Amino acid sequence: MAWRSSEETFYDALSYKVKHSKRVFFLVWRGSIYKLVWLDLLVFLLLYYVLNLTYRLLLDEHSKRVFEGVVNYCSFHGNVIPLSFVLGFYVTVVMNRWWSQYTTIPWPDSIAVFVSATIHGQDERGRLMRRTIVRYVCLCLTMVLTMISPRVKKRFPTLNNFVEAGLLLENEKNILEHLNGKFPKPSKHWLPIVWATSIVTRARKEGRIRDDFAVKTIIDELNKFRGQAGLLLSYDTISVPLVYTQVVTIAVYSYFITSAVGSQWVDNKLQSPSDSTQISNIDLYFPIFSTLEFFFYMGWLKVAESLINPFGEDDDDFEVNWLIDRDLQVSYMIVDEMHHEHPELIRDQYWD
Amino acid sequence: MAWRSSEETFYDALSYKVKHSKRVFFLVWRGSIYKLVWLDLLVFLLLYYVLNLTYRLLLDEHSKRVFEGVVNYCSFHGNVIPLSFVLGFYVTVVMNRWWSQYTTIPWPDSIAVFVSATIHGQDERGRLMRRTIVRYVCLCLTMVLTMISPRVKKRFPTLNNFVEAGLLLENEKNILEHLNGKFPKPSKHWLPIVWATSIVTRARKEGRIRDDFAVKTIIDELNKFRGQAGLLLSYDTISVPLVYTQVVTIAVYSYFITSAVGSQWVDNKLQSPSDSTQISNIDLYFPIFSTLEFFFYMGWLKVAESLINPFGEDDDDFEVNWLIDRDLQVSYMIVDEMHHEHPELIRDQYWD
Amino acid sequence: MAWRSSEETFYDALSYKVKHSKRVFFLVWRGSIYKLVWLDLLVFLLLYYVLNLTYRLLLDEHSKRVFEGVVNYCSFHGNVIPLSFVLGFYVTVVMNRWWSQYTTIPWPDSIAVFVSATIHGQDERGRLMRRTIVRYVCLCLTMVLTMISPRVKKRFPTLNNFVEAGLLLENEKNILEHLNGKFPKPSKHWLPIVWATSIVTRARKEGRIRDDFAVKTIIDELNKFRGQAGLLLSYDTISVPLVYTQVVTIAVYSYFITSAVGSQWVDNKLQSPSDSTQISNIDLYFPIFSTLEFFFYMGWLKVAESLINPFGEDDDDFEVNWLIDRDLQVSYMIVDEMHHEHPELIRDQYWD
Amino acid sequence: MAWRSSEETFYDALSYKVKHSKRVFFLVWRGSIYKLVWLDLLVFLLLYYVLNLTYRLLLDEHSKRVFEGVVNYCSFHGNVIPLSFVLGFYVTVVMNRWWSQYTTIPWPDSIAVFVSATIHGQDERGRLMRRTIVRYVCLCLTMVLTMISPRVKKRFPTLNNFVEAGLLLENEKNILEHLNGKFPKPSKHWLPIVWATSIVTRARKEGRIRDDFAVKTIIDELNKFRGQAGLLLSYDTISVPLVYTQVVTIAVYSYFITSAVGSQWVDNKLQSPSDSTQISNIDLYFPIFSTLEFFFYMGWLKVAESLINPFGEDDDDFEVNWLIDRDLQVSYMIVDEMHHEHPELIRDQYWD
Amino acid sequence: MAWRSSEETFYDALSYKVKHSKRVFFLVWRGSIYKLVWLDLLVFLLLYYVLNLTYRLLLDEHSKRVFEGVVNYCSFHGNVIPLSFVLGFYVTVVMNRWWSQYTTIPWPDSIAVFVSATIHGQDERGRLMRRTIVRYVCLCLTMVLTMISPRVKKRFPTLNNFVEAGLLLENEKNILEHLNGKFPKPSKHWLPIVWATSIVTRARKEGRIRDDFAVKTIIDELNKFRGQAGLLLSYDTISVPLVYTQVVTIAVYSYFITSAVGSQWVDNKLQSPSDSTQISNIDLYFPIFSTLEFFFYMGWLKVAESLINPFGEDDDDFEVNWLIDRDLQVSYMIVDEMHHEHPELIRDQYWD
Repeated sequence: MAWRSSEETFYDALSYKVKHSKRVFFLVWRGSIYKLVWLDLLVFLLLYYVLNLTYRLLLDEHSKRVFEGVVNYCSFHGNVIPLSFVLGFYVTVVMNRWWSQYTTIPWPDSIAVFVSATIHGQDERGRLMRRTIVRYVCLCLTMVLTMISPRVKKRFPTLNNFVEAGLLLENEKNILEHLNGKFPKPSKHWLPIVWATSIVTRARKEGRIRDDFAVKTIIDELNKFRGQAGLLLSYDTISVPLVYTQVVTIAVYSYFITSAVGSQWVDNKLQSPSDSTQISNIDLYFPIFSTLEFFFYMGWLKVAESLINPFGEDDDDFEVNWLIDRDLQVSYMIVDEMHHEHPELIRDQYWD
Repeated sequence: MAWRSSEETFYDALSYKVKHSKRVFFLVWRGSIYKLVWLDLLVFLLLYYVLNLTYRLLLDEHSKRVFEGVVNYCSFHGNVIPLSFVLGFYVTVVMNRWWSQYTTIPWPDSIAVFVSATIHGQDERGRLMRRTIVRYVCLCLTMVLTMISPRVKKRFPTLNNFVEAGLLLENEKNILEHLNGKFPKPSKHWLPIVWATSIVTRARKEGRIRDDFAVKTIIDELNKFRGQAGLLLSYDTISVPLVYTQVVTIAVYSYFITSAVGSQWVDNKLQSPSDSTQISNIDLYFPIFSTLEFFFYMGWLKVAESLINPFGEDDDDFEVNWLIDRDLQVSYMIVDEMHHEHPELIRDQYWD
Repeated sequence: MAWRSSEETFYDALSYKVKHSKRVFFLVWRGSIYKLVWLDLLVFLLLYYVLNLTYRLLLDEHSKRVFEGVVNYCSFHGNVIPLSFVLGFYVTVVMNRWWSQYTTIPWPDSIAVFVSATIHGQDERGRLMRRTIVRYVCLCLTMVLTMISPRVKKRFPTLNNFVEAGLLLENEKNILEHLNGKFPKPSKHWLPIVWATSIVTRARKEGRIRDDFAVKTIIDELNKFRGQAGLLLSYDTISVPLVYTQVVTIAVYSYFITSAVGSQWVDNKLQSPSDSTQISNIDLYFPIFSTLEFFFYMGWLKVAESLINPFGEDDDDFEVNWLIDRDLQVSYMIVDEMHHEHPELIRDQYWD
Repeated sequence: MAWRSSEETFYDALSYKVKHSKRVFFLVWRGSIYKLVWLDLLVFLLLYYVLNLTYRLLLDEHSKRVFEGVVNYCSFHGNVIPLSFVLGFYVTVVMNRWWSQYTTIPWPDSIAVFVSATIHGQDERGRLMRRTIVRYVCLCLTMVLTMISPRVKKRFPTLNNFVEAGLLLENEKNILEHLNGKFPKPSKHWLPIVWATSIVTRARKEGRIRDDFAVKTIIDELNKFRGQAGLLLSYDTISVPLVYTQVVTIAVYSYFITSAVGSQWVDNKLQSPSDSTQISNIDLYFPIFSTLEFFFYMGWLKVAESLINPFGEDDDDFEVNWLIDRDLQVSYMIVDEMHHEHPELIRDQYWD
Repeated sequence: MAWRSSEETFYDALSYKVKHSKRVFFLVWRGSIYKLVWLDLLVFLLLYYVLNLTYRLLLDEHSKRVFEGVVNYCSFHGNVIPLSFVLGFYVTVVMNRWWSQYTTIPWPDSIAVFVSATIHGQDERGRLMRRTIVRYVCLCLTMVLTMISPRVKKRFPTLNNFVEAGLLLENEKNILEHLNGKFPKPSKHWLPIVWATSIVTRARKEGRIRDDFAVKTIIDELNKFRGQAGLLLSYDTISVPLVYTQVVTIAVYSYFITSAVGSQWVDNKLQSPSDSTQISNIDLYFPIFSTLEFFFYMGWLKVAESLINPFGEDDDDFEVNWLIDRDLQVSYMIVDEMHHEHPELIRDQYWD
């Protein structure tokens, strides 16, 4: 379950440090706030300076007075919307969904263990059955992932790619295509699970499974797997309501458009007491606190955006392609390589 | 489980983009904040301008002074209620219920898999039993949905519509009608499940189910299905308390009535320092920030309103009619079309 | 599970509209904010006007100055307590408990289904066993409900009322009374469940239940039922801590006593700039915003109060008496009327 | 499960009223906010008046000016810490843990039901086995409770007290002591459960349990019991982090030290406009609003403190000693007194 | 499950007091807020005084005016970010994960109980099987812990250390190393579980397990153990998103840099009314309220930091090394020492 693929060793080492020493983690780029926010920040500062220079270089006296009016108006009314509040609630909702989705991903390991333990027979047919069942299980997960993850869709654009990857055989592909022609609409991710169930029933008939109880156990696990795969689909189709996301996003962006105007330095700033002009002089060159605010609120919004679709292509998203390979490899190892194998039983060191 | 019906292909493609590129999603209309808020916004602006024009065109000097008093009073006291707070808590409550309801919808797939695996016999009676059981399961769900969803109620206003849709047979309809006459009050959605149980018991007696264990497994699943269907009913009858919804709604609407008055531009605006009249000039023509505030709070309230009854007819509501068709089709496929069928067992590409 | 009793048809129709059209629901009285708040609001306004008239009619000049001091003091310090915050957290806690309690109510349906499926025999003894087991189950729930719900207690004040309602037989009552004499303290709601278990064991011995597996299944379900019934009792005895409720209630009431004083109109109102006396003139006749605030906060508090004891006699409380009747009726129907009955098996319309 | 012990009848009656009529509950003392807060309030008021009198009677003019400076400084900066916020989050965390702990307490009832149903034999050895198993279960819970509850520790300071209470026999005590000598460190609460398992295995061998299925069921339940008992221990050892509690407590206390200074009445109060000195005159004699604030925040903190250790000796804490007696009594009744007993089967009143 | 290792007896006694008397707990050092915050506080105060002395001793008049401008600017805009809000939400998220991780740690006790109850045979091979299975279970947990906890990694840097600790035998190490060479990437923590399963299957074949049902039970438990171990890994690899942590940390630190500047005492402090200079005189020597604020917010942040990686080396982190030893010891005791042993069955004191 070592989640990371090999090309990320450098970041791994770093992220290990990050977890164990907070001093380093301000410098990370990948998956960091800097990477997520820099573009928006650039646009914000651009807007700020364009307005700033326009005011100081282009406007005549009368326009300046109007501009000052606009600035004071924005500066005065800009904070009508409690950003922190709506972001706090929204991010909490999104984060709970994000983690639920991760824990919903089904793992084939326990099916493999049951299959290995209960389907007996070292002959070719026994091996075939065991391997085919776990292959079907991995196929089911992969089919679901192509529907929800652009990364996996890129890797498996058609059924032929499944065949190439060894997840699907030619004859199975033909059946799937035939069915897709006949019933085009509903997704077919449950089909491999139904096949696996039929193989289990056949194995019972042939006596390779020795009791009805084991049959029930495996079918239970297969059903659970299918249920979790279906739930992944549900998370994808029934997402956080569009309205909520729009409300939050529009609130943040309109806040910062207002802020870019309202934090302008002008000659007749409203809220500053008349005598202390040295304050605004600082603001003149760089809007430090507006930038800080931007960094903070926009960063919080980006947390939500990067979590709302965890199967996407962001840095923080789940490594689903790696997962597909790992599942097939480990499943085969459990049901085939080490079927009914265990190290010799030897006395351990605390023996009497 | 592909949730969308076919006529929504355009929105599907769009919503796919929405999920994968946030730049586009401000333009969506269906299920968007614009669609939900525009009517209320219109009313708000109408109210604003009626007051505005009245003040400037109709009132005499004395009435103007009184009006100014009212405006200042509203402007001064308008924010006594912490809208953001109550909305944050309320939306969180409603959203949790909304998602729970979705995950409560029972799927017949796992029952179908168990039925297909354990009820043997390729003869007509075997097929009849398998098909009837899953049909009863779909019938149970549909009966519950007619009670909670106006969309489904429209499609199945009477028992005859069930018969037409192939979910109910004539003889079964008669039994149901007889029972409804005898015991009118309690809902009968559990009846098909009890029938299905009886068929399972009969199948065991006839030897089509080979062990007691399988009987127990199927009955367990049937009971779970009925339990979840009953929970859907509970979500409908025991809703979020009316009081809570009223408190929130009254708070939002009274806030914006106050705001429509309080944000009026008048000659003697209280909180503006006397010298800088250019501020209010902007406010004169369009109440930008009040509109923004309206957009935000009303949008947040609409999130709650569109989620509080997820089986209704809003754009974001669950596609229950599609679901009913899908369930019956997939169930029949599993128990009948592919009963005990699986592709030929062939060596996969990683064999040895 | 149609929750409403028949005399509530009118409200049902209305509440249906409420769910499907928000325009109507401001007019509902039953279970509404108006019904819950009106009395407190009256007291608040009374207090306000008594003080108001006292100030204007009874006080001499010197007392007026003192009174003005008190008003300004209250107006200045009145909002030291963040009502919205504490109410938000408190209502969330209470609402979670409220819904948990509802979902904790055990339903006898699944026990009835299992009993009907596994206890064979159409003779009188078979029927007796099936009916008695489900009757004991309903008895257990009713005993628990008399302990937590005043409504049910009113209906079943003594064991004789159980006998009259057909939930208990004379001989069983005698056993219960004997045991209550011997061990007065612990509640006896688990006793019917133990009896039901003994009947199940006997049925197995007599061969009416055909396998040990079915025995275990029914006993499991009986235990689950007892567990949930016990949890209902726990929710009742281990309530939200008194301190928390007191803190919230005292905060709200002291806020509004302060507010009734602080929102008085007086000649020398502190926070109003000296020149614009027209503001306070409005306040003179009716404290609009204080009333609005009262409506809002008090309504929020009432949400909590009406949810904290969901088995009480409020409008929003669960219809437990209806539930008791429904449970017995449906259970009898499942285990007796339709025991091992199902409609004739006929080909459905999609057959081949 | 009637939770209250007999000496609390008065409070019971009262708390019943509390639940059903909110008018009374301001007068309760036991477990009330008054009882929890009065001592701290006294200290707060003492501090306030000591400072007050010092200022007015002891200080010379120069010291008065310094004192006024301190007061104004505290009054101005005192609210830098958002108490309500941190208390809201903290109390929510603590309350969730508190309720989780209560629901984690395992009840022996379902084990007793299973033992009674599946271990046959009315002879002495059968009775012995049934009684011993449930005694071991109660012993396990009691051992865990001595480790987490001072009340129970007081009642069972040594193993001898277990013997006296009839939970442990002499020979069992010797084994426990022998093991404690050999492996002193790990707690031994799982030992009675292991013994109970061995008795179950023996009963199976002797044919008193008739099928392997029942064995598995009982062992499952025993394991679940042990798991919950272990979780209780975990709640005790892995508490809410000390830092969090310290942060909250220090925040509240430092706030009120500041408040005791900042709410002093002094001649040159900063924030009061110069002309209206009548305001502070009120503050002169009793700091009403500071007291109210104190009552509120300190009360909220006390909610958390009284819930953080629910097995302690506060008024709101769980009645664990009562629980231990109830568990043993009810278990014995189920497995022995009413083993395989049930009332005669008689037709109920709705029979045909 | 007594969680503490022996060298912590002193702190144990103390922490016991802490739990039962809040008066003491301000004095604790280990795991306290003082220990976590002191370093950052030192840096904060250093920064404050360096700026303070620079202003008063080094700057000329003109630079002083500029400095005053900066101070006023920071003092005016410093609180743009709602620290309390974002910290409240963040700490809640982190604390939920922290407790979930603790409850995810699998305990081998119930596997040991099942193994002891169902694998019969007092001969060496029976003992070997029982001991080996629980050893494999402990090995699985330890392997996972080396991947997520630096403490455990230090203790078991290589497979040889497993061998020395008696968790792994030489021949098993060779197999593991062979497999690691062949499939380097996926973690192998599931391997011991697969081995254990094979031993269970073998025991069934040899008749040491007497029914298929027991086989299924043990494999179920083994699978559950593996699942929880895998979830621990997931918690480690899929951590709280880096962005969220960065947003919060940067917000807190930038707040206190601003605060160190903005709370400087300068001659022309903006917000103080001109006449009362005695206020700032206090601020001159020590920034009391800034320090208090620092203490509070930084302490809250440290709560999160110390909980985000509960398997680390902080004072509050879980005692995983102790756990590994305890698990092996207790497991061996259950399956070997007290296999099928229980005290003699004697009449208890309430016997008739």
